[in-house]
Amino acid sequence: MLHISLNRDQEESLAEQIYHALKESIFSGNLKADEKLPSTRGLSEFLSVSRNVVMEAYEQLWAEGYLYAKEGSGTYVSDGICFERKEIAFPDKETPINDLLFPPKRVNFRTGVPDLNTIPIKRWGQIYKSVTETLDGTSLDYQNSFGMQTLRNQLSIYLRRVRGVSSRPENIMIVNGAAQAFSLLSRMVGKDEDVLVENPISQGIVYTLSSCGITMRTIPVDENGIVTAALPEKPPKLIFTTPSHQFPTGVVLSIKRRIELIEYARKHNCLIVEDDYDSEFRYEGNPIQSLQNLDPDRVIYVGTFSKILSPALRMGYLVLPECLVAEMQNEKYVADIHSPVLEQLTLAKFIEAGYLTQHIRKMKMIYLKRRNHLEACLKQKFGDAVSVTGTRSGMHLVAAFKSIVFDAELKKALNEKQILVTTLGDYFLDDGGNSAQAKKASDQALVIGYGNNDLRAIEEGVAGIAQVVNAFKRSKV
Amino acid sequence: MLHISLNRDQEESLAEQIYHALKESIFSGNLKADEKLPSTRGLSEFLSVSRNVVMEAYEQLWAEGYLYAKEGSGTYVSDGICFERKEIAFPDKETPINDLLFPPKRVNFRTGVPDLNTIPIKRWGQIYKSVTETLDGTSLDYQNSFGMQTLRNQLSIYLRRVRGVSSRPENIMIVNGAAQAFSLLSRMVGKDEDVLVENPISQGIVYTLSSCGITMRTIPVDENGIVTAALPEKPPKLIFTTPSHQFPTGVVLSIKRRIELIEYARKHNCLIVEDDYDSEFRYEGNPIQSLQNLDPDRVIYVGTFSKILSPALRMGYLVLPECLVAEMQNEKYVADIHSPVLEQLTLAKFIEAGYLTQHIRKMKMIYLKRRNHLEACLKQKFGDAVSVTGTRSGMHLVAAFKSIVFDAELKKALNEKQILVTTLGDYFLDDGGNSAQAKKASDQALVIGYGNNDLRAIEEGVAGIAQVVNAFKRSKV
Repeated sequence: MLHISLNRDQEESLAEQIYHALKESIFSGNLKADEKLPSTRGLSEFLSVSRNVVMEAYEQLWAEGYLYAKEGSGTYVSDGICFERKEIAFPDKETPINDLLFPPKRVNFRTGVPDLNTIPIKRWGQIYKSVTETLDGTSLDYQNSFGMQTLRNQLSIYLRRVRGVSSRPENIMIVNGAAQAFSLLSRMVGKDEDVLVENPISQGIVYTLSSCGITMRTIPVDENGIVTAALPEKPPKLIFTTPSHQFPTGVVLSIKRRIELIEYARKHNCLIVEDDYDSEFRYEGNPIQSLQNLDPDRVIYVGTFSKILSPALRMGYLVLPECLVAEMQNEKYVADIHSPVLEQLTLAKFIEAGYLTQHIRKMKMIYLKRRNHLEACLKQKFGDAVSVTGTRSGMHLVAAFKSIVFDAELKKALNEKQILVTTLGDYFLDDGGNSAQAKKASDQALVIGYGNNDLRAIEEGVAGIAQVVNAFKRSKV
Repeated sequence: MLHISLNRDQEESLAEQIYHALKESIFSGNLKADEKLPSTRGLSEFLSVSRNVVMEAYEQLWAEGYLYAKEGSGTYVSDGICFERKEIAFPDKETPINDLLFPPKRVNFRTGVPDLNTIPIKRWGQIYKSVTETLDGTSLDYQNSFGMQTLRNQLSIYLRRVRGVSSRPENIMIVNGAAQAFSLLSRMVGKDEDVLVENPISQGIVYTLSSCGITMRTIPVDENGIVTAALPEKPPKLIFTTPSHQFPTGVVLSIKRRIELIEYARKHNCLIVEDDYDSEFRYEGNPIQSLQNLDPDRVIYVGTFSKILSPALRMGYLVLPECLVAEMQNEKYVADIHSPVLEQLTLAKFIEAGYLTQHIRKMKMIYLKRRNHLEACLKQKFGDAVSVTGTRSGMHLVAAFKSIVFDAELKKALNEKQILVTTLGDYFLDDGGNSAQAKKASDQALVIGYGNNDLRAIEEGVAGIAQVVNAFKRSKV
C-alpha cells in the first residue's frame, strides 16, 4: 500500500495532500506507468479519511492526465510522466526590490519631475472613488482604443483654451504617458525612413526611438529654436520638436521659424511632432501658442500629465492629424487595447471641476519661487561667473559657468557628494558633425531641474556644487 | 492707427484680445514685415485701456517672435510671418463617440468577458481612496518598469497557492493586460524567427502577433490539447499555449503532453508561453496546475485580471524565466516606462485583504449556474441534436450541432436578430494544411460565452438561436 503522510493541521486540504503525494510519486517513478492504484475505498480506509477525499484527489489527477481509468477494473498511472521538474530556489528572505526608477540622491537636480509632495492626490482619490460609485457595467468592458469620450471632450476644451490647440475630441487619443506616444509614433516610420531630432535633446526620447530601431538625424538649435536653414534636402518621416520650451536649452521657437518648419513639412509631405511637455508653467505672460495651431494636418501634438500632475499616473495624449487617426488607433489596440478606464474618468472630472487649472496656477507660483531662489543662490555663490538662460518657463534652467568645465572627474566628485546634475553636453547627440564642438562648449553649462526641490534643497544643492567646484579648483592648483 | 475692436464682456482678457488681433493682422499681411507698431502709450490711449494691457500683449508677441524691438526706436513686425493657417472645422454639435470596443447586441455570446455587473467596484474605489490617503511623494515618481513591489509580492504568494506557479517577485512583471504581454513578447522574436500557435486559437492573439509582424506556424489540438507528435523539426522561437483550458475548445493539456512539450523546448532551446486566461474558474475540483510549474526556466506565464476582475482595468502580469528578465524590463520601459502605480497598489491591497479570493469564489458559483442553465436550455431546445464540451472551467463552452451548419447565411440571419455567436470554425487559422477540413467540420459547433449573460439572457439567446435555425431550415425546404 502507498505511504502517504497526512497532516490534519495544515492549511492544505487532505484531498490536496493526497493529490500532491501521488503526483510526486508518479514524477519520481515510485509509481510506475500502468501501475494499478488502490481503490478509493481501500485507500480511504487505509488513510482513515472519507472516501470522498480520495475521490477528489483521484479526480483531479485524472483531469490533469496523471491517471487513467479502465471500466470495471480500476485506476492506473498514465505513461510518460516520470519527469524531473525544474525547481526555482526561493530565498529565505525576500530580496528588497527598489520600486523607484531613479535611486534617491541627497540633492537631485534632475529635470522633468514635478513637485511630488504638492500633488492633490487625496482629492484625486476622492474623485476616483466617486467615479466608482456611479459606474455602470459597460464602463468596465473593453473600450475604444482612443480612450474615454468624457476625457477627450474635456481635453479638447482645455487644449483649445490654454494651448491654442485645434483639437476635436475625435482626434485626441489617450495614451500611457508621452513615452507610449513616442513608442507608438515610432511604428509610423518605415524601414527605409528616418526621423529628424533637435540637438540637444531629451535622453529619454533618444532611448525610446533608438530602442524602436529608428534612425535619427539631428538638426541644431540656436536661440530661436530649430535652425530651419539646416533642414535637410532629403526629408525625414517625422520631425521631433519642443517648440514652446526647447529641451533642454529652454528657447522658444520663433514664429518665423515655425512657419518655415510647417512650409517644409507641407512641401516634403512629412509630419512634425510637437512635444509640449511643460509649457503650462510659463512665468512671464501666457503660455506660448502651440505649433499645432498653425497646421493641425501637419503637426502631431503630444501632451502629458507627468509634469503637471504625476508621472506615476502614466497619462498622456496625442492630438492626431486626420491622416493618422485610423493607423494610430490600430497601433494602440495592438499595444494594450486601451488605457485604464477609471483614471481616465477621474481625470475628466478633475479637469471639469477646475482642479487642474487650480493646481497649475498653484504650482506656477511655487516653481516661480524656486526658480528665483535658484537664480539667487547661483548668483550668490558664483557671482558674474554664472549666467542663466531658459528661465521663462518649465521646471529647469541652464546655468553656464565661466572657466568651469564639468568633465568626468568633476562630475564624479559631485556624484560622490550625492549631488545629481547633468551638463548641457550630456544632451547632445554625437552626429559626427559640428555637434561635437557644441557638446564640448556645453560642458561648461549645467541643466538644473528645480521641480521637485524645495527652497532648502536648492540652497543645499547650489552650496554643494560650489563646495565641490572650489575643492576641485584648489586640487588642480 | 490700427483698428482693434475690444469687448469688455468677454472671458478673454483685453491683453489677449489685442494679442490675437495683432497676430491675425500679421498673419493676414495687414501688418507687413518691418512695419512699425504704435508705441504702447499711443495704442493704449487710442484704445482707452491701461498701458500695462498693451505692454502685456506686445511682450507675448515679442516672446513668440511676431515683433522685434529696436533700441530707442520702437517695435516692428518681424518678417516671414504672412501665412495662411490651416483651420480645423469644428462641428456645431459634438459627434458622439462610441466608447465601447464591442457595440452592444441584444444577446451577446462573446467569450472572454466576465460579468460586468458583479465586479466589486465600489470596494475597489474605497481601497484606491485609502491608498491615496497614506501615499508618500516617492510613490508618485517614476517607478521600476517591472511594477510595484507590494503587488509583485502578493501575486507571488497568490500564484504559488492557487496556480502552482513557481514565481519569485523578482520575476513578475506588471503589464497593461495580457494584450500588452503578447505585444512585448513579440519583440523577443527575431526577423528570421517565427512562433508556433495552437489551431484553433483566440482571434485577439492572432491579430496582435500578425500586427507585430510575427510569422505564425500552427499546431493542431485534440481532446488532450496540443498534438505534441506534430511539433515541428525546425523549432520556433516561442510556442503559444493555453494548457489549463484551451481556447476555444476548452480541453486540458494532459500531463504527458506537457512533459513532451517541455522536453521539446529544452531540446530545441525555445520558450513556451502559457496563456492562463481564465483557469481560476474551474467547476469540478481545483484549478489545473500550471505548466510553468514543471519548468520555470522554459515557460513564460501570462496572467490577466481582465477575466477575474474587469478588462477596463488593463491589468495583467508576466512570470518570466530568468533569461528574459533584463530584456523584458527594457521592452516595458520603452513601451510606456511602467504601468500606472495607484491601481497596482490598490490591487495589492485587494488581494492581501482576501477580496480577490472571495470574488473568485462568488463568481465561480454564478458562472456555474449560468453554465448549467445554458446546458439545460440547449438540451431543451435542441435535444440530442446538440452535444456540449469544454464545460469544466472558464466562461464559455462549445456546443456541436448535428446537421446544422452555421454558414455565412445563417450567421447573417442570427446577426439580424442581434444575436452574436461565433462558430468554432471562426477560430481556425487557415494554414493550408488539413486545418481547412477541421475548420469546415467546426462550422457545426458554436462557441458560446456566458460570462456576462444572466440566466434570462442565456434563455433568450438560446431561444433566439433555435428560432433563427428553425426558420432557416424551413426556408430551405
